[in-house]
Amino acid sequence: MTRIAVLLAAELTAASIDTVVSRVLPAADQVQTYRANGRTVLEVTGAAPALTERLREWPEVEKVLESAQEKDLLLTRRALYGSDSVVDVGGVPVGGNAVAVIAGPCSMDGPETLMRTAEAVRAAGAALFRVGLFKPRTSPYSFQGLGRDGFEAVREVRRVYGMPIVTEVLSVRDIEDLLEVADMLQVGARNMQNFPLLSELGKIGRPVLLKRGLAATVREWLSAAEYLLAGGNDEIILCERGIRTFETTSRFTTDINSIPVVKELSHLPLIVDPSHSAGHSRLVAPVARAGLAAGADGLIIEVHAQPEKALSDGAQALDPIGFGNLMPQLRNVAAVLGRGMVAPPVDEPALAG
Amino acid sequence: MTRIAVLLAAELTAASIDTVVSRVLPAADQVQTYRANGRTVLEVTGAAPALTERLREWPEVEKVLESAQEKDLLLTRRALYGSDSVVDVGGVPVGGNAVAVIAGPCSMDGPETLMRTAEAVRAAGAALFRVGLFKPRTSPYSFQGLGRDGFEAVREVRRVYGMPIVTEVLSVRDIEDLLEVADMLQVGARNMQNFPLLSELGKIGRPVLLKRGLAATVREWLSAAEYLLAGGNDEIILCERGIRTFETTSRFTTDINSIPVVKELSHLPLIVDPSHSAGHSRLVAPVARAGLAAGADGLIIEVHAQPEKALSDGAQALDPIGFGNLMPQLRNVAAVLGRGMVAPPVDEPALAG
Amino acid sequence: MTRIAVLLAAELTAASIDTVVSRVLPAADQVQTYRANGRTVLEVTGAAPALTERLREWPEVEKVLESAQEKDLLLTRRALYGSDSVVDVGGVPVGGNAVAVIAGPCSMDGPETLMRTAEAVRAAGAALFRVGLFKPRTSPYSFQGLGRDGFEAVREVRRVYGMPIVTEVLSVRDIEDLLEVADMLQVGARNMQNFPLLSELGKIGRPVLLKRGLAATVREWLSAAEYLLAGGNDEIILCERGIRTFETTSRFTTDINSIPVVKELSHLPLIVDPSHSAGHSRLVAPVARAGLAAGADGLIIEVHAQPEKALSDGAQALDPIGFGNLMPQLRNVAAVLGRGMVAPPVDEPALAG
Amino acid sequence: MTRIAVLLAAELTAASIDTVVSRVLPAADQVQTYRANGRTVLEVTGAAPALTERLREWPEVEKVLESAQEKDLLLTRRALYGSDSVVDVGGVPVGGNAVAVIAGPCSMDGPETLMRTAEAVRAAGAALFRVGLFKPRTSPYSFQGLGRDGFEAVREVRRVYGMPIVTEVLSVRDIEDLLEVADMLQVGARNMQNFPLLSELGKIGRPVLLKRGLAATVREWLSAAEYLLAGGNDEIILCERGIRTFETTSRFTTDINSIPVVKELSHLPLIVDPSHSAGHSRLVAPVARAGLAAGADGLIIEVHAQPEKALSDGAQALDPIGFGNLMPQLRNVAAVLGRGMVAPPVDEPALAG
Repeated sequence: MTRIAVLLAAELTAASIDTVVSRVLPAADQVQTYRANGRTVLEVTGAAPALTERLREWPEVEKVLESAQEKDLLLTRRALYGSDSVVDVGGVPVGGNAVAVIAGPCSMDGPETLMRTAEAVRAAGAALFRVGLFKPRTSPYSFQGLGRDGFEAVREVRRVYGMPIVTEVLSVRDIEDLLEVADMLQVGARNMQNFPLLSELGKIGRPVLLKRGLAATVREWLSAAEYLLAGGNDEIILCERGIRTFETTSRFTTDINSIPVVKELSHLPLIVDPSHSAGHSRLVAPVARAGLAAGADGLIIEVHAQPEKALSDGAQALDPIGFGNLMPQLRNVAAVLGRGMVAPPVDEPALAG
Repeated sequence: MTRIAVLLAAELTAASIDTVVSRVLPAADQVQTYRANGRTVLEVTGAAPALTERLREWPEVEKVLESAQEKDLLLTRRALYGSDSVVDVGGVPVGGNAVAVIAGPCSMDGPETLMRTAEAVRAAGAALFRVGLFKPRTSPYSFQGLGRDGFEAVREVRRVYGMPIVTEVLSVRDIEDLLEVADMLQVGARNMQNFPLLSELGKIGRPVLLKRGLAATVREWLSAAEYLLAGGNDEIILCERGIRTFETTSRFTTDINSIPVVKELSHLPLIVDPSHSAGHSRLVAPVARAGLAAGADGLIIEVHAQPEKALSDGAQALDPIGFGNLMPQLRNVAAVLGRGMVAPPVDEPALAG
Repeated sequence: MTRIAVLLAAELTAASIDTVVSRVLPAADQVQTYRANGRTVLEVTGAAPALTERLREWPEVEKVLESAQEKDLLLTRRALYGSDSVVDVGGVPVGGNAVAVIAGPCSMDGPETLMRTAEAVRAAGAALFRVGLFKPRTSPYSFQGLGRDGFEAVREVRRVYGMPIVTEVLSVRDIEDLLEVADMLQVGARNMQNFPLLSELGKIGRPVLLKRGLAATVREWLSAAEYLLAGGNDEIILCERGIRTFETTSRFTTDINSIPVVKELSHLPLIVDPSHSAGHSRLVAPVARAGLAAGADGLIIEVHAQPEKALSDGAQALDPIGFGNLMPQLRNVAAVLGRGMVAPPVDEPALAG
Repeated sequence: MTRIAVLLAAELTAASIDTVVSRVLPAADQVQTYRANGRTVLEVTGAAPALTERLREWPEVEKVLESAQEKDLLLTRRALYGSDSVVDVGGVPVGGNAVAVIAGPCSMDGPETLMRTAEAVRAAGAALFRVGLFKPRTSPYSFQGLGRDGFEAVREVRRVYGMPIVTEVLSVRDIEDLLEVADMLQVGARNMQNFPLLSELGKIGRPVLLKRGLAATVREWLSAAEYLLAGGNDEIILCERGIRTFETTSRFTTDINSIPVVKELSHLPLIVDPSHSAGHSRLVAPVARAGLAAGADGLIIEVHAQPEKALSDGAQALDPIGFGNLMPQLRNVAAVLGRGMVAPPVDEPALAG
């Protein structure tokens, strides 16, 4: 069955959109309306070729995309918009001309260490703060995160240092709670195809960071993003975090090729997680530089005030000195591509929150 | 930190168990109690070597396992029991001397087709019936399953043909509903590390079929089973359904080596899904035979009355004739290993349900 | 450019073949002649569609195959012949209705052990004997095989026990020497795309066992076989020996799906190497049974009189007792598929050689 | 068995070395002497612990390395020298502080195109010229390279543009011929474990570029380099060219993590091949930049005067404009790490050769 995507002109009123739909309906089997990237897209199933031609001439229509070949990638496709999306995460733009660095500990292990880590990453220039509250752990016997007990400390970080907060959501039931403290919710690699979770996150009106699954192809990853966009959330950032291969000297294999591939296929911002994909702190700096050099829009890096005491993934966290040394290199690599680095939303931390 | 597992003798009273725990506690940091495989296991953290020795002499103790190396695999380990678990699925034993065949359509697409499929697989000797109600689909635009609208037809299959029902659960919020119609809930490959879902399924008191993730190592798979066991559910069946590799002539790569590996490491029953791991109906019979020849305790096979009309995965479903031809071969392969094939719970279907 | 394959009728004289070629040439860009599977195949490049039609009516032509899609797989394709090839290895047919078992040590480490191993595998029913003389070793510091120093003992095995000999060739320069003692030369996984070696082996007039590369797709593997066939050698046997994946509990991952896939695509005989693909002796029996159950035409199994003293790969070798226990199981699995098991060429070993 | 490596002091006379060996022998089972990295290394098997201790005090001994854990990696190990090797390729240093770019066509398809390509890459700043004469092709029906027929044109490139020549060797029998025109011989991915070829290349006294196999682990790759070093050739450059994974949007997966991993494990220079690892010309620039950003010592890039007419791999070749645009970016990325870019050996091309 043919299926076409119709990008409507910007700033149409709801009434104009309704009119367009009502004119399309008689010549098609089905019309579905999506908001994506701040615009309206119609997915028209079973349109006659003649309709497709006529649509291109309507003033309300900006672009008609025949998407037969990639029938599952509609709203994520670059061809639809022809430009990059920029996602606003608590005041920090991700995906524009400047790159953004998200930093912080794998999991929160105590308020004092958290504040020290936040102070260090802010001083070095991180724009956003990551911290794990609910942790997905391979073993039921490992530390599972502080959950709500860590909320107060996270709020304090945001209040004092002004960095918007990124944290992982494992389950539909935690969404509401996490929205109290998080500016962006992260979907981890193991949940990339947790479709009920994706459907719910389509409705939250808050940015989502979608990590690639360990064994997900680029197209499956974009299809997971499509769930979020089709659900109504167009503030989606993708994150390459390494795929599983036969090589064991690093924890996963950073698929650096995926950076230009995804930028070519999709308009969504894309960042790299060098900490999980490399898995050893001494590999983080080279992989982070490579990510930006390949064209990523940012990085998410694990930093811990005392990695050797971290309750999870200490082996891959940078300490504040390592992160401080890395940031100027990252600025310089970004500059080679003509890009700056995003600053935190305000210079006066006391005003933040 | 040392951690030991203590398997208590069978048929201890709750009071005796309490006494044992109270005697262990003064010489250890922590004692945790699990019910697994119908038995009680103590996980003792920080036990002094002397305690470990003494425990072996207590009459209430059957076995002490020093599990330093495999610290995340405790309740799934074969060494703890030294024998195979048998899981009762609605009256059908899985994991014993006879192999069990689960058959049915990928997803339910209509009551009539479902009944015809059920009649055919029952006639050919399937012991359990599989059917998808909530479907995990890579694309948001694909058919997502009938959900509750299919319940009535599934109940009818169970009532008329007497086969216990196996169906997939995607989300914590569907568990209660699905327990109305299912004898066993299946965790799909994409949810193998959906830890909140695993934790909830630990409490349902109903068998769980745990499929291996596309990129999950054998140890990660067993760790996921450990979540279920540690949560209190010891009726767990594992399912090898193919891993993702570079090869594309079949949909996934059936890891046939994993069959003897898992049987060696764990006491849990293990079945093979030749339909998903091969992905083409004409490959199903050879892979199914291979699974049993390698020592699997059963198979889960997609059968559809009219595969060419199936709403999902039709390419990999057998039709009734293909399934009918396969079953005698499977009986013969099982016989080579001295195993029979499990029959449905009753011979008179009208009596079932 | 169009390319078609023309299978000529059996038992044409050389003169008739020349006539056919001379009649095709004016209507095509190029005609190349191959002998494969004991038959003559013309590869016609740039044939006009009319020629293709006419060819089907010539009495000298048995089949015309339009091979646009699979342009690199011509002589290996099942569609060309529509039946299974049978390869004669020193009197033992491989690929027919009966399955063949090749057994012997990974590498020869001494004449006495070799003879004891040969006696044991012969007694248990192996039809062919494998032994490594030139060994491919990952490290330059590992034992590289006895080379010519082992020839005398290998000849003795053949003389006394009558089993044809299979051994690996690493280099063009060793071919001539090895043909003194070997009935079939084996190309190892690491040399599957050693194209100069394949080209030379196309000319030897002796069977070749072509192992699949660790990262070779099924099509690349068949393309490697195509080198041998196009070079003039149609006595080719394929061997699945496991592919490299992320899983580490077994040495490689036996791609059991490849068995029916290859049998569908190609007419060549196909055997399985459970020893290398599993990598641990206790996994060999289940994987060997699975290979036959999936439809393989035979097995190549490492057996050593004293595995614990083997100079290479002892961990994966069966001892004589293990092999003796396995063989009846293999006979029974073969029988399920209506197949027998090939016997060594003569019953009276003293007459062999 | 214990095995230790002994790095002797620089500039010892042959007589002094003999003396050292003769003093070690009585206290060990075996002593083997290697020249690597311009130095002498003794591999001592079965040394008593006391000997190991005493050796550290001899003036002729610079370092003693107990290599039990990594017994196959001896001469490739960074720990032995603690510094980077620099390999001189026809006057161009690879592995020092400046990065080197090798450019040229996948295969030579004609003298005129070759000269135009050479002119373009030289003008843009390439230091070395790559060109394929003997080509490894998956299919026997693909273009296999011009072989010796291309030698004259290659000599002309070297004479006119002064760039040393890099070309692939497929077989022992071609080595002597290729040494007439090549400054460095390349071992392709498919031959990485062609051990007879590696052994021969250990003796040529000319640099070797060793590409990583499609499914080779980092340690297997270094073991292959060890063959070359142990054979007497210490002018080895490693090349990451992508590994095979499940992802298909790029041809292979560039293992960017391997760059810092290899630099940490080994003293050998390491370059990246973005053309083969990405497989599409539009992905080459981002992957090339990423390679240098991750710390590679250089790049090997396919450039063709008219990619659309190339006889092999045209889809992944840059045209002269694309290469010309990339080079300044590469210079800038190198500069971020404090590195320059190597120039061709002479500025006056007429003087070269």
